[in-house]
Amino acid sequence: MARIVMKFGGTSVADLDRIRNVALRVKREVDAGHEVAVVVSAMSGVTNQLVKWCQDLSPLHDAREYDTVVATGEQVTIGLLAIALQTLGVDARSWQGWQVPIRTDDAHGKARVDDIEGATLIARMQAGQVPVVAGFQGVGPDNRVTTLGRGGSDLSAVAVAAAVRADRCDIYTDVDGIYTTDPRIVPRARKLPAVAYEEMLELASVGAKVLQTRSVELAMKQKVRVQVLSSFEDKPGSMVVDEDEIVEQPLVTGVAYSRDEAKVTLRRVPDKPGIAALVFGPLSEANVNVDMIVQNLGADGTTDMTFTVGKADLPRARDVLEKQRPGIGFEAMLADPEVAKISIVGIGMRSHAGVAATMFKSLAEKGINIQVISTSEIKTSVLVGSEYTELAVRALHTAYGLDAES
Amino acid sequence: MARIVMKFGGTSVADLDRIRNVALRVKREVDAGHEVAVVVSAMSGVTNQLVKWCQDLSPLHDAREYDTVVATGEQVTIGLLAIALQTLGVDARSWQGWQVPIRTDDAHGKARVDDIEGATLIARMQAGQVPVVAGFQGVGPDNRVTTLGRGGSDLSAVAVAAAVRADRCDIYTDVDGIYTTDPRIVPRARKLPAVAYEEMLELASVGAKVLQTRSVELAMKQKVRVQVLSSFEDKPGSMVVDEDEIVEQPLVTGVAYSRDEAKVTLRRVPDKPGIAALVFGPLSEANVNVDMIVQNLGADGTTDMTFTVGKADLPRARDVLEKQRPGIGFEAMLADPEVAKISIVGIGMRSHAGVAATMFKSLAEKGINIQVISTSEIKTSVLVGSEYTELAVRALHTAYGLDAES
Repeated sequence: MARIVMKFGGTSVADLDRIRNVALRVKREVDAGHEVAVVVSAMSGVTNQLVKWCQDLSPLHDAREYDTVVATGEQVTIGLLAIALQTLGVDARSWQGWQVPIRTDDAHGKARVDDIEGATLIARMQAGQVPVVAGFQGVGPDNRVTTLGRGGSDLSAVAVAAAVRADRCDIYTDVDGIYTTDPRIVPRARKLPAVAYEEMLELASVGAKVLQTRSVELAMKQKVRVQVLSSFEDKPGSMVVDEDEIVEQPLVTGVAYSRDEAKVTLRRVPDKPGIAALVFGPLSEANVNVDMIVQNLGADGTTDMTFTVGKADLPRARDVLEKQRPGIGFEAMLADPEVAKISIVGIGMRSHAGVAATMFKSLAEKGINIQVISTSEIKTSVLVGSEYTELAVRALHTAYGLDAES
Repeated sequence: MARIVMKFGGTSVADLDRIRNVALRVKREVDAGHEVAVVVSAMSGVTNQLVKWCQDLSPLHDAREYDTVVATGEQVTIGLLAIALQTLGVDARSWQGWQVPIRTDDAHGKARVDDIEGATLIARMQAGQVPVVAGFQGVGPDNRVTTLGRGGSDLSAVAVAAAVRADRCDIYTDVDGIYTTDPRIVPRARKLPAVAYEEMLELASVGAKVLQTRSVELAMKQKVRVQVLSSFEDKPGSMVVDEDEIVEQPLVTGVAYSRDEAKVTLRRVPDKPGIAALVFGPLSEANVNVDMIVQNLGADGTTDMTFTVGKADLPRARDVLEKQRPGIGFEAMLADPEVAKISIVGIGMRSHAGVAATMFKSLAEKGINIQVISTSEIKTSVLVGSEYTELAVRALHTAYGLDAES
């Protein structure tokens, strides 16, 4: 017997038939003798409609009222799922954030979970009742409804799992697990039986959007074992766990890519102390996130600075830099949105030297020019022309021995 | 300066434009120096969709989960209206039932308001903030969301008005007041400047569906002055107040009609003690409401019993009576759904004899046969063939001097 938190996203509860299907899945775990709590999102599309109403009324709406409005999506689903479970003879009841309570700070629209009262939920589970908890929402210090930001239901599920000391947090979604890379690009991509928390974080940061980043951070901190699996198929998914639990650690676990960044180059910047602050300070103030940065010293006392920003932020970044031009004193600004970031991720990189060398060699063999390189402890990313995305991903997937046997 | 509760129903907040329009109306009262609280319903159609989902999942759904689901409609509206008010520069905040709190009993789906904490709302109003309170909902003794039954937002508004000791509770709706009769039947019907609570109750009970009955009862009990007015036009409505406030009391205030009843006659029932209990006991057990009852003693020791039931209940009533036939011993059962109940209502009837005689005479002059008569202190109702409905209503409207001057 295990204690399990099951989380179902918006597409899994998109209509009554799917809600009935979710109820059947929950019943199966209950019938197997497990203690189960469920966390659900809003029916897909509902939250978007609610957000749109708020924005149409005022782009600068009160975040507290926004939370009051958008939190209703999950409230509908918990009630409907509780009814569907009861119809199958499963004892169930719904819990809104304020009823549990799921206490958060007062950062409305992107609140942080401070504390979840687990005792009541545990008592109900032990008595054979299935708590159906609203994801994405909590209650702030002033007794007002808060929401955790988009994708926050994953975070709710992990937080509830930690609060009830669950053996596992199963995240049901529209993919059936975590793959070595995007199967649409590499048909021989393999589903990973297990991924370490840190690998999942790095994969998420470079474009693998299976789990919300904050939920992985919380799972890592609270040591909650997370499983990602399909709500439409009936097979085991991928576990996200502590690295100690992973028996076979490959050097590289996965290859990820992102086409969401753009490259900016400032030509012939005077090479003097404080110049980086002059460039990146104003960008930060304008809420432009800068990712990869390289700087090449020229022979003439000037330098070329290259960095990447989110593609959507490019116009704003150019604006900001053009205004700072007199102070910075660059000769020209070049912007290139046609780039892709390709990353290899793996805990094995921490203890093995030379892992990145294979990356550079493989790309060179395919004639792919590397524009920027950045590394972290368990990740190496390169920026290449976006037309090379698929070629690069496939080459690296093969080079690191990730292809499934055919 | 007055303290006012403004209540807007579903059609008044059906979309963002109408919500903006409501915000303008509220702002006008605030700008006039009044202290204002607002009570709103769900956007029209929303509650029906939510109810349908619950019923589709299970006709016998858990009423506590039903309440969790359907209460979301009002939660959306309070958030959106608060944003719309803030956009106009009006300080406003939303209040869900559990936040106020509006405490109810645990009769989920049709809960009774036990107590509303008025002090916080009053303090906010005195500080210049507009509380926007969710209608139709409260919180039960076990901290779960309750709803007050269909039309419950009127009840919420009156209860909030009582709790904040408001000078007036304005119910904005899609009609612009209370009329002497249905203007679709009598174009010369007049809008009444004021109606007594008891008259309103009688009018509501006989088909004038402007205000939910329970809300009028509560207003009468708590002495809340209620105004019914249009949310689309800009003119005073009708006040529902204590009869002492009504200066000119006409004998008859209004003429109402209902085509929702059917007539049942049991022929040649043995005239013996306890026979009425044998007829009406089983009907009551089957949840069939019986309204008008008459009994005519025949010469031969049998009697004909005639009574009316709700048209929708007629098949059930026939079933029940057919099963009781051996015990009751009637000779035949006749059912006639083609009837209409025509009523005159007026506080003046209490102190003036002979008011009903005018009714009987007017109907006789038009050749309308009266099938059943029933009376209360301030109401007289007659049952006539339904094809005479309009003719009867017009005749009585003229006879009691209610026609507007043309």
